[in-house]
Amino acid sequence: MAAHISIIGLDGIPEVRAGDDLAAVILGAVEASGEGLRDGDLLVVTHKIVSKAEGRLVDLRTVEPSDLARRHAERFGRDARQIEVVLRESVRIVRMDRGIIIAETPQGFICANAGVDASNVPGDDVVCLLPRDPDASAAALRGALRERTGIDVPVIISDSFGRPWRSGITNVAIGVAGLAPLADYRGQEDPYGRMMHASVLAVADELASAAELVNGKIDSRPVALIRGYPFARAEGTGRMLLMDPERDLFR
Amino acid sequence: MAAHISIIGLDGIPEVRAGDDLAAVILGAVEASGEGLRDGDLLVVTHKIVSKAEGRLVDLRTVEPSDLARRHAERFGRDARQIEVVLRESVRIVRMDRGIIIAETPQGFICANAGVDASNVPGDDVVCLLPRDPDASAAALRGALRERTGIDVPVIISDSFGRPWRSGITNVAIGVAGLAPLADYRGQEDPYGRMMHASVLAVADELASAAELVNGKIDSRPVALIRGYPFARAEGTGRMLLMDPERDLFR
Repeated sequence: MAAHISIIGLDGIPEVRAGDDLAAVILGAVEASGEGLRDGDLLVVTHKIVSKAEGRLVDLRTVEPSDLARRHAERFGRDARQIEVVLRESVRIVRMDRGIIIAETPQGFICANAGVDASNVPGDDVVCLLPRDPDASAAALRGALRERTGIDVPVIISDSFGRPWRSGITNVAIGVAGLAPLADYRGQEDPYGRMMHASVLAVADELASAAELVNGKIDSRPVALIRGYPFARAEGTGRMLLMDPERDLFR
Repeated sequence: MAAHISIIGLDGIPEVRAGDDLAAVILGAVEASGEGLRDGDLLVVTHKIVSKAEGRLVDLRTVEPSDLARRHAERFGRDARQIEVVLRESVRIVRMDRGIIIAETPQGFICANAGVDASNVPGDDVVCLLPRDPDASAAALRGALRERTGIDVPVIISDSFGRPWRSGITNVAIGVAGLAPLADYRGQEDPYGRMMHASVLAVADELASAAELVNGKIDSRPVALIRGYPFARAEGTGRMLLMDPERDLFR
């Protein structure tokens, strides 16, 4: 039988505000879609609605830029207050050139602007930060969904990251709860009886990318329901997708 | 209405040999699946069956390793003949350490072992190369499918690449025909009337990743039919997904 996976982009998620009950919002959208939630489903949630629910917004009018932020903003025609927020969300600057800042965040992500983003945020002077602990956010959402439905639905929290060498951004998993983010095929034999090499697949990132395909332009469907993917139930985390610095040839 | 995309992994693709008619093989599997091919469908094909059909296999018993290949293989316990093939498939060595070679290929890809792979290949001494021109391979397959069905079905040829900073490999698009591989959201307003920044999505890579989810371990379903994704018809290529060296902060 052919493998069949459905990627369903949920409509009708309202503007999320600090303190909102995200599980209730998502369950409402699942019900409205007529799909319901089933055992074996998983959810991919773009981080922005998680960040908003957690109040991870910064009003730039309250930010006093450092000299570094001012000088960088001046050279590249950017907003010094926003650069300052990027620096505050960083533990290490990986590259800083041509108006692009690639930084390592306290959560261990290496991404543009330390994940600080002004799009899809209400208010002209407001920027959105990454969730402080996306694995904890995913675990909390998984717990709340299980409590209300009795179903253990894995949760992936996604963001769009650039990558070296290739154009464009793709969605990756920054927070994970309830599934194994990596599928390790090493040690299994291929159909010719030979051992597979180097085949550890980042399936949580692939699921996040699949979900982006239904998010719609301007993120009008921030939650995707994925049905039919035979994930491995496990206490996996998004942290498992971060390359060990010892093994990273590109650090 | 909720967005709904189906990812269908086709069963029953037989072992492909040099000279095989890939369009016929795939259409046979599409028919056997009971799905048929419809306008609006697209296909993601893992490169290995394309390489096999194109005869891109090397018998290592015919390969005489260079001194560099011998020394590198000796230090890291690898097969010098296979290292030699990797060097022959490279135009630039990006990193070469700890038994890992990351190389730039003539096609412009930066990937482990220049895409040379011994898994899922018949014969103990045979390795598989990337298609010589994956965009041409994708275009040829699209053309053959259109000729036989009258339907213009975009084709993506995929491979699994590693990436800096994150663990695990994910499928990306190395060849594209019939669709725009990048979705450019720049210049569009978000729901708050603000312009979107830096939002060029590598949708062909996301489609390749989504397709991997149905490939199955050991690549038992090398072709995925994707239905319901509103792609932009265009004469796009996989080459468009390669970062311009001038803009690449990581070259």
